[in-house]
Amino acid sequence: MISDTIAAIATAVGEASISVIRVSGPEAVQEVDAIFKGRIPLQQADSHTVHYGFIMDSASGEKVEEVLVTIMRAPRSFTMEDVVEISSHGGVVAVRRVMDILLQQKIRIAEPGEFTKRAFLNGRIDLSQAEGVIDLIRSKSDRAFTVALKQVEGKLSRQIKPLQQTLIETLAHIEVNIDYPEHDVESFTSELIKEKSAEVMKAIDELLRTANEGKILREGITTAIVGRPNAGKSSLLNALAQDNRAIVTDIPGTTRDVIEEFVSINNIPLKLLDTAGIRETMDIVEKIGVERSRSAVNEADLLLLVLNSSEPLNEDELELLEQIRDRQVIVIMNKIDLPRQLDMDQLLQYVQEDSIVPMSIVNEEGIDRLEQAISSLFFGGKLEAADMTYVSNVRHIGLLKQARQSLVDAYEAADQLIPIDMIQIDVRLAWEQLGEIIGDSAPDSLIDQIFSQFCLGK
Amino acid sequence: MISDTIAAIATAVGEASISVIRVSGPEAVQEVDAIFKGRIPLQQADSHTVHYGFIMDSASGEKVEEVLVTIMRAPRSFTMEDVVEISSHGGVVAVRRVMDILLQQKIRIAEPGEFTKRAFLNGRIDLSQAEGVIDLIRSKSDRAFTVALKQVEGKLSRQIKPLQQTLIETLAHIEVNIDYPEHDVESFTSELIKEKSAEVMKAIDELLRTANEGKILREGITTAIVGRPNAGKSSLLNALAQDNRAIVTDIPGTTRDVIEEFVSINNIPLKLLDTAGIRETMDIVEKIGVERSRSAVNEADLLLLVLNSSEPLNEDELELLEQIRDRQVIVIMNKIDLPRQLDMDQLLQYVQEDSIVPMSIVNEEGIDRLEQAISSLFFGGKLEAADMTYVSNVRHIGLLKQARQSLVDAYEAADQLIPIDMIQIDVRLAWEQLGEIIGDSAPDSLIDQIFSQFCLGK
Repeated sequence: MISDTIAAIATAVGEASISVIRVSGPEAVQEVDAIFKGRIPLQQADSHTVHYGFIMDSASGEKVEEVLVTIMRAPRSFTMEDVVEISSHGGVVAVRRVMDILLQQKIRIAEPGEFTKRAFLNGRIDLSQAEGVIDLIRSKSDRAFTVALKQVEGKLSRQIKPLQQTLIETLAHIEVNIDYPEHDVESFTSELIKEKSAEVMKAIDELLRTANEGKILREGITTAIVGRPNAGKSSLLNALAQDNRAIVTDIPGTTRDVIEEFVSINNIPLKLLDTAGIRETMDIVEKIGVERSRSAVNEADLLLLVLNSSEPLNEDELELLEQIRDRQVIVIMNKIDLPRQLDMDQLLQYVQEDSIVPMSIVNEEGIDRLEQAISSLFFGGKLEAADMTYVSNVRHIGLLKQARQSLVDAYEAADQLIPIDMIQIDVRLAWEQLGEIIGDSAPDSLIDQIFSQFCLGK
Repeated sequence: MISDTIAAIATAVGEASISVIRVSGPEAVQEVDAIFKGRIPLQQADSHTVHYGFIMDSASGEKVEEVLVTIMRAPRSFTMEDVVEISSHGGVVAVRRVMDILLQQKIRIAEPGEFTKRAFLNGRIDLSQAEGVIDLIRSKSDRAFTVALKQVEGKLSRQIKPLQQTLIETLAHIEVNIDYPEHDVESFTSELIKEKSAEVMKAIDELLRTANEGKILREGITTAIVGRPNAGKSSLLNALAQDNRAIVTDIPGTTRDVIEEFVSINNIPLKLLDTAGIRETMDIVEKIGVERSRSAVNEADLLLLVLNSSEPLNEDELELLEQIRDRQVIVIMNKIDLPRQLDMDQLLQYVQEDSIVPMSIVNEEGIDRLEQAISSLFFGGKLEAADMTYVSNVRHIGLLKQARQSLVDAYEAADQLIPIDMIQIDVRLAWEQLGEIIGDSAPDSLIDQIFSQFCLGK
């Protein structure tokens, strides 16, 4: 039973207009009220109302901060507990001052994800919905956001639950057959298992169909830009960043030295290797032996190789082309506005023609073709309709695949007329694996692990 | 007359639990209602209530984001206009999506400071209060925050206004004397001018007494750590940062390469020269000729020179000591746990004894003495009581000094029995200069310039 009251800063830290601290738990209203001076006591306030006033330091009697306090009473809140949101001035000092005062009350600091975990434990959302919440926050493109929002709304859960239902009915049938074999013929039950397993497998296949795309939407395509100096790598980076509303974000929990950069190409997020990494790979040809450059190339899902079409391929480039023969690579033939000196036949010994994109980056020519090439490579040319359910989470994909395998096992066993109490195990396993997606049958350790990935204040 | 409706992201951008978009203006409720789907229409909602629902894309009929919307109707809001705050999931995509939809309505993006500017133009706060708002956000220590909070609450204004009142009464008296010279003797008026000028000057002096300290509290002491390699500079930096809850903040409007670091020593904020600069000055002795290191030293208000007391002073250090002879410097005699090899008499040729602080940084010995030394250097050993009015803003300090000078001129002119219609000009000038602090008599260009320094969304 949850009985303590927790608090955390819910907004990003930095100079800003406002910051918000979220408090949740049975004592939330009472404990905040004890340090709040407004027009009326918060304990008398209606749910979903906002109150202007000051957070007070009861020891010194000093005003600590000017705030707006929002009261949301259980169960009509994010956690289904009493929730108080304190909106203070932005900046680092204001929130810290308010937090310091809060933590002198019967309130402890929340663990990462603890608010969402309470929403889950209190039954407001299931596990896949909770995971959608963190995907929403982390999403790098509109499309990924839409996928996550549907997951938060329970779209995936609504597709999983009927499959569970089918399996539980099948299990019930098997139980009856085992307990009262005289009521049924075993071969009839075997047929039923085959039919139902096939039905659920088909549904799982449909869900898994776009799993790769979903995963890419969620996590981005790790991309390295390579090529010799002056081929146009930095121009390409700038062109991608400018035209596609670059999203630059600090990843929490890491030092601010480690920054990932995302650009969104046609709604496909490219996760560019970190700035230092890009600078490194900028000179990949020169430093072909350098360990770090090599690992940048190895780590990438996609290589964008920039060649200068106005010059012949040089030794370093040929070596690089050889090295990346089996990789997902798009060759950018840059500077097509200049007379071509590059030998196409030579280039075609290493790469497919359809992976070559002629561009003139300085003239902003060919960006659309590059976008199309990336789309083709990863999405077979087009994204599914927006209302598709994309299974994007690696955990979900893994469990769906496991459940599918359990059902294959059940099907084959039934086909070979293996005793149904043996087959029962596989069907139950499939049911549990599906349940683990939405959290019905997820072990505590898994739940803890999932919520620990959340950011503070969520 | 303000008649349009504005919106901006009010929270810092980054991965976080929630983000807030603020909308203000006569159409705020109506325009947000048009894209909101909740339990009841927002236009029917009471002031200061919160509503759960979705922001919708009316073109596609798609849900754009799950939100909480707060309604605060005029005049009970930050701007005194109708204000709507939209609380969305955190992260960069969510807020951008909602902003995109908002800007399709009859809503434009707010300029930096425009919300606070409206609060000022609508008469809810005066100019010094508005400036306090930005100081709150930018404050780097509790003490600076307290000073700013008092300013927001109007404490400075309440001290300026009686002075203005005194001056306006004096001006009225002068007017009467000029218009009806038969009613008064000019020498009596001259005495009155002297008396009232002296009275206001005294009050201004009292306000200016802590101006230096106020300015330091507000802006921090620009500090460079210098010394030869291995003297203990990075250990000192770490010790200061750890013991004093380092506040690291990205300064908006600059690239993320430029980062300032603040540490708060006994509530005195030290603004350490940016990380690159510190690294640079780390090796100042080696690079004594390097332009950048020199400018770091020149730019600093305070130098912390770290010496290794277990070794004699070397040539580079002697040269550096010579160079910084006239500067505010604290010499840290580090490694006092080791036998001393440094010649104290030699050192005392360059620096005062009381600016030498013996420390053993690795043993965390002497940090308190360093704090005391910094306090002594800038605050004569102690800070004023917390309820002091610190005039901290350079603009305010400048205007107070100007007003004081105008009053000196008036006093002296009155003393020399110069015709009072001449003296009137100085008294009026002093009155206007005080008025400019609180915005009574501030020109539009100044007001625009002040608010343009605000962050977006405030």
